[in-house]
Amino acid sequence: MHDLTIGGELGGTKSAAILLDGAGNILNEFRCPTEAERGREAVLENIVAAARAVAGEDFGRVAAVGLGAPGPLNRREGLIYQAPNLGWQNVPIVRLLQEKLGRPVFLENDANAAGFGEWALGAGRGTKDMIYLTVSTGIGGGLILGGRIHHGRDDSAGEVGHTIVLPDGPLCGCGRRGCWEALASGTAIARAAAEALKGGRESRIRELAGGDPAAVDAAMVARAAREGDALAREVLDRAFYYLALGIVNLIHLLNPEAVVICGGVSKMCDELFIPVRRMVAEWAYAAMVRDLPIVPAALGDRAGVIGAAMVARAILRD
Amino acid sequence: MHDLTIGGELGGTKSAAILLDGAGNILNEFRCPTEAERGREAVLENIVAAARAVAGEDFGRVAAVGLGAPGPLNRREGLIYQAPNLGWQNVPIVRLLQEKLGRPVFLENDANAAGFGEWALGAGRGTKDMIYLTVSTGIGGGLILGGRIHHGRDDSAGEVGHTIVLPDGPLCGCGRRGCWEALASGTAIARAAAEALKGGRESRIRELAGGDPAAVDAAMVARAAREGDALAREVLDRAFYYLALGIVNLIHLLNPEAVVICGGVSKMCDELFIPVRRMVAEWAYAAMVRDLPIVPAALGDRAGVIGAAMVARAILRD
Repeated sequence: MHDLTIGGELGGTKSAAILLDGAGNILNEFRCPTEAERGREAVLENIVAAARAVAGEDFGRVAAVGLGAPGPLNRREGLIYQAPNLGWQNVPIVRLLQEKLGRPVFLENDANAAGFGEWALGAGRGTKDMIYLTVSTGIGGGLILGGRIHHGRDDSAGEVGHTIVLPDGPLCGCGRRGCWEALASGTAIARAAAEALKGGRESRIRELAGGDPAAVDAAMVARAAREGDALAREVLDRAFYYLALGIVNLIHLLNPEAVVICGGVSKMCDELFIPVRRMVAEWAYAAMVRDLPIVPAALGDRAGVIGAAMVARAILRD
Repeated sequence: MHDLTIGGELGGTKSAAILLDGAGNILNEFRCPTEAERGREAVLENIVAAARAVAGEDFGRVAAVGLGAPGPLNRREGLIYQAPNLGWQNVPIVRLLQEKLGRPVFLENDANAAGFGEWALGAGRGTKDMIYLTVSTGIGGGLILGGRIHHGRDDSAGEVGHTIVLPDGPLCGCGRRGCWEALASGTAIARAAAEALKGGRESRIRELAGGDPAAVDAAMVARAAREGDALAREVLDRAFYYLALGIVNLIHLLNPEAVVICGGVSKMCDELFIPVRRMVAEWAYAAMVRDLPIVPAALGDRAGVIGAAMVARAILRD
């Protein structure tokens, strides 16, 4: 009986595996260093070892392995185009792992995998259409529509961070101006605070950064805001304003049943849900925000591995 | 043998019906005035008469009727909540028509129906994910994702016209500022030109409007631009800029296989495709715009009835 599924996650420094039964219960978990510095073969052996370790003597019951990996990648060809953290280019990971594991392996973008995990067994459970947002260094996303990950033509859908919300706004890492992540991500928060400090503004943030504006990060801004610092409050208010604006746009476009938010910024500033919900409720069409959950993710750092396993299950079932 | 499908469209002044065979061929068409002023019963009788007339002696072969109607409506309950053009409120149109026609009737928002028509048999044929945009008085849309209309929780998905592309931008009819349709629709074009005229700008548009800025419409601006008028050119360039910007956002979010554009503005200014394609290609991720068709709709005013018929077929098939 092949009733178990393994979910794996391939990270720049750490990797993880989880074993799920047919009801979505977690039977076992395993974490290990990725050891990218030891080269591709070592990384692959680590993944294989993690998969075997997490299943143990039940490996014979494993139907498939889902693997979440950083993009860009090609799901259908099972190919990781580029993983700068791993120093990889064009690695046919699915074929390599299938050979070593003797099980079907399915590849998924790590953000989509985490979003699918939250949809299947986390904060979006029971919905049909869910928007998953990671607000962290950048803003990423996963769109679960009709109970499936919406991939798009090139597996590139969900580039929410690079939708433009303020034409001619601040320069984004991608080279465009006014991208959502240039206004509402952790990087944007840190940069706005650093610029104000360089302009001479007095703020608790300066102390927290040891006097060096270049050392400011979003966590310092969040901490200073909690301590009542005016600049920190302004910077966060502006970021939350744009966060809410982008969420309104997604709601108007996709009319989801839930918006699930995770990532560093949402964890550091968990009070963000209050102003963001208020602004979204004020700006969006009433019918589309009525009883709409805008909520933190529920699975923590297990979302990716759980989602990867559920992706594999969904593909087998189809 | 029930191999035929009727598609109907209920408009404020005109209604239409079409008869499709199983291969999507148009076997017959019928148009009639809606006669909203004669009351609800008369309108219903006109639809029934149109459906019977378009099928003629083949009515016995009709499997189902799809009906495109203006929203807001509830597909699942077969209810038109409000149709101001018809003076209707909470009309259970599906039940009423099923009783009169003796066939399953399926209701769909008219913009979605037209988009689905273009996807099934028009400019988006053969794609999986297609964005359909109507750029006219407002900007509306339909999202065909994975070969299905994406409806969302409240059947309200695709409110693309009310995604905000310029915070604190011009006031929109919906009360928000900087909505896409406040910057790139026919109404936005007419308003921008009228404001420039009120400000004293010399322009051919003034003549075309008989000297009255309040009389300006987008067609006059388009005509003046073709005649080389500088103000008209500026106004259109700005509208096309925002049109392209909104399309880039949709592409980054949904990574479609085609963007199909219809509506008054795209017809009046068919040259818009050239600058819009150029800007989109410049701004969007290269992989996501490579060989991406951004094209005019192909079915003209038949898109809605064809789409309504195809919606009914798709539901029966599911």
